[in-house]
Amino acid sequence: MTTPLAELRFDLASLAAAYAGGLSPVDVVDEVFARIEACGDAGIFISTFDRATARAAAAALGSAPDGRPLWGAPFAVKDNIDVAGAPTTAACPDFAHEATEDAVAVARLKAAGAIPVGKTNLDQFATGLVGLRSPYQPPLNAVDPALVPGGSSSGSAVAVARGLVSFALGTDTAGSGRVPAGLNNIVGLKPTVGAVPTKGVLPACRTLDCVSVFAQSVDDAYRAFAAMAGLEPSDPFSRSVRTTPIGPAPSRFRVGVPTPASRSFGGDVGAEAAFAATLEDVRALGGEVVELDFEPFFAVASLLYNGPFVAERYEAIRSFIESRGEAVHPVTRKIIESARRFDAASAFGGLYELAAMRRTLAPSLGAVDMLLVPTFPRPRTVAEVTEHPVGLNSEFGTYTNFVNLLDLCALAVPGRPRPDGLPAGVTLIAAAGADARIAAVGERLHELGGTSIGALGLPAPAAPERAPTPAPDEIEMVVVG
Amino acid sequence: MTTPLAELRFDLASLAAAYAGGLSPVDVVDEVFARIEACGDAGIFISTFDRATARAAAAALGSAPDGRPLWGAPFAVKDNIDVAGAPTTAACPDFAHEATEDAVAVARLKAAGAIPVGKTNLDQFATGLVGLRSPYQPPLNAVDPALVPGGSSSGSAVAVARGLVSFALGTDTAGSGRVPAGLNNIVGLKPTVGAVPTKGVLPACRTLDCVSVFAQSVDDAYRAFAAMAGLEPSDPFSRSVRTTPIGPAPSRFRVGVPTPASRSFGGDVGAEAAFAATLEDVRALGGEVVELDFEPFFAVASLLYNGPFVAERYEAIRSFIESRGEAVHPVTRKIIESARRFDAASAFGGLYELAAMRRTLAPSLGAVDMLLVPTFPRPRTVAEVTEHPVGLNSEFGTYTNFVNLLDLCALAVPGRPRPDGLPAGVTLIAAAGADARIAAVGERLHELGGTSIGALGLPAPAAPERAPTPAPDEIEMVVVG
Repeated sequence: MTTPLAELRFDLASLAAAYAGGLSPVDVVDEVFARIEACGDAGIFISTFDRATARAAAAALGSAPDGRPLWGAPFAVKDNIDVAGAPTTAACPDFAHEATEDAVAVARLKAAGAIPVGKTNLDQFATGLVGLRSPYQPPLNAVDPALVPGGSSSGSAVAVARGLVSFALGTDTAGSGRVPAGLNNIVGLKPTVGAVPTKGVLPACRTLDCVSVFAQSVDDAYRAFAAMAGLEPSDPFSRSVRTTPIGPAPSRFRVGVPTPASRSFGGDVGAEAAFAATLEDVRALGGEVVELDFEPFFAVASLLYNGPFVAERYEAIRSFIESRGEAVHPVTRKIIESARRFDAASAFGGLYELAAMRRTLAPSLGAVDMLLVPTFPRPRTVAEVTEHPVGLNSEFGTYTNFVNLLDLCALAVPGRPRPDGLPAGVTLIAAAGADARIAAVGERLHELGGTSIGALGLPAPAAPERAPTPAPDEIEMVVVG
Repeated sequence: MTTPLAELRFDLASLAAAYAGGLSPVDVVDEVFARIEACGDAGIFISTFDRATARAAAAALGSAPDGRPLWGAPFAVKDNIDVAGAPTTAACPDFAHEATEDAVAVARLKAAGAIPVGKTNLDQFATGLVGLRSPYQPPLNAVDPALVPGGSSSGSAVAVARGLVSFALGTDTAGSGRVPAGLNNIVGLKPTVGAVPTKGVLPACRTLDCVSVFAQSVDDAYRAFAAMAGLEPSDPFSRSVRTTPIGPAPSRFRVGVPTPASRSFGGDVGAEAAFAATLEDVRALGGEVVELDFEPFFAVASLLYNGPFVAERYEAIRSFIESRGEAVHPVTRKIIESARRFDAASAFGGLYELAAMRRTLAPSLGAVDMLLVPTFPRPRTVAEVTEHPVGLNSEFGTYTNFVNLLDLCALAVPGRPRPDGLPAGVTLIAAAGADARIAAVGERLHELGGTSIGALGLPAPAAPERAPTPAPDEIEMVVVG
């Protein structure tokens, strides 16, 4: 019995089964465009690719899977990542320019057989966690349209949550690949810093930026990640990080979580209860929960916007903001221009402070296998965020801002659902190079949580059986100092 | 037959032999103070330690060597490195403060049995390569008093070159541990960045600063380095670097040298000829000389003073220079205050540029086992540098400035002597962690060169027989990103 195309779920396993049954990539591309049109949310994509071109790319894949890991999988690209021939707007129309080359990440996905279909909306210049800071109409939250979709990778998260594509690329500097995943009940994989080259991505903070993946399952996200990972010599921030296959979840592991005193849910008891329920799932999996004082992590986070790192955002668009400041979203402009108050010496001062904090936190991080945090304190409505655009944006970043500064990898998955149906995600965090370790636990938590995916009303795909992996997580360092 | 104390050479082997013959560390301390007084150069030390205290420290070592690697070895400390109970001036009297703790490097040397005897003169705030930028009387060059002594570690280099101590600590950010070694015909070891903790050292550029060693021989310098090296968890810039023993020089190795077009000797044919003669020694040792265009290395160097890295110097003394600017040496003040023209965004811009240059140069560096350069283009007189205090300072840094920025280790040794008796050193440079590799070649070049040590009229100590080392050079990374 063949699933009708209109009902075909776009996760990689369902797609592969359909392709094995004779479906063609061209049919899938047609279906993607039909779904985009039918979904009724013009805020998800800033641009879709010319349909004829996308069909031709699909046709070029041939009619049968050729063993490439992402053969025939349609994907969306956040519009701060270059796709050759398409404009990159970064959600700033006056900044737009046509890309002449694919970003390395996009080129590698294409080489793995995936088909890009369009560029998605974002908080302008990837500055924001709310999804409203765009002159384009913001996408609607896929779970509850009264809520913000989350950002900055708003369109990519919603595209996946609405089932329009198999996966979508985001970027993540301060949480942009995790917060919108949590708000739309999907998976958001934020790899080790540098594991996926950022060449061809408009920088937010170049030393911290990551290309991230949204998908329906951890397995799908990890497959896309693995296809993009690997040293790119021409990208100075690229590193060689081993992408070991996901193994079985360990039978015993230690999970650091915030002490109750350092947990914050903005007064939302539903969010608090959902997190507590996920901790029970962790224990059921064999995890030992270790409470850590998170205040030092929050102190690290304050470097990102209250300290000199905001100057990286300024440097990324310096000539534009200095000549065309009025073309920048007013909230975004205020944030980025705040960098002007820092001198070069204080930038180094911030780096010293960060280096000291990294060293201070190393023992805490070394004593556990991973951290588990809520992805955000609580969901917020469009109305609330419109009224408090900066304060509630900061609230969303509570558990995400410190991660890249500490050179950690992270994985956001839907946690235990809330009785009221609002989204409630959790994020696993671990040392650089431990992407596979948190994926193994994350996919089990996703399955146990039982939250339905995005807006699809479907359960998380069952986690595949995993063979033990031969090697421990390892990271091979390339640029040091 | 016992060497009279007044004729005892203070290299570690000679000292050990004398100690085995019954000499006591107290006698050596007395002799050090006698030599300091007799040498007739009041510019070498900014302060010497109280003689009674130094004698007591020596007496506390006991009367016979106890196996500690530096037992009874007297050493001098550059006056930007803390020794508990002594003032640290950084050659700025108004900045002086009494240190309450030993710098980690000093504490480790003491623990290894070495005896500190005083604090040496420097270019103020370790900013300079000439040795004249100090309100204290500059030390005299040990080879030729008309020449500048080199800096910034001027006093430490001259103290060794005059035979006053067994070794001396310098610091090296831009060449301060190499240029004065070259100008005084001694050895200057500039370890891998972070291998020796810098906690307790007044920063110049915290991300680049190294504690360095001046000694009569590579073996002595390496022994002091090995005693100081090792991760210090409380120092965020400290790294764990293996200090493998020096092995025999390899029978074949590849040495990158500047192409003739990118060699610069400031028109000094003597310097040029001496470097060419050392290249013949390299070939005689089995080295294959590979010419490299050094322009990219010089471009890296320009980041150090013409780019935002000078802001690290500003940050190191921000409150002092902002409140007491007039107390800073006028040349030094002008250099450090130039940091004010850089904003935080441009500091990150400089870091991006450096990251890109590191990546660009990686293939060149990876294709050779080490680099060999002149330590400086040519010696310069006090009169010349007084007339051109900035330009000739920059000239001295031609072959040193880029090294720490590229996370390399370096070793300055006297090269082939010049017929006119002026100093002419060479510097070996290699990847982080390859300190032992360049030491093995450096001590052979030192021996072959045959230049007499400093002002002692003595040949370099014969290089010890070396057993093959079991492990390759390795560096274990601790803080990344």
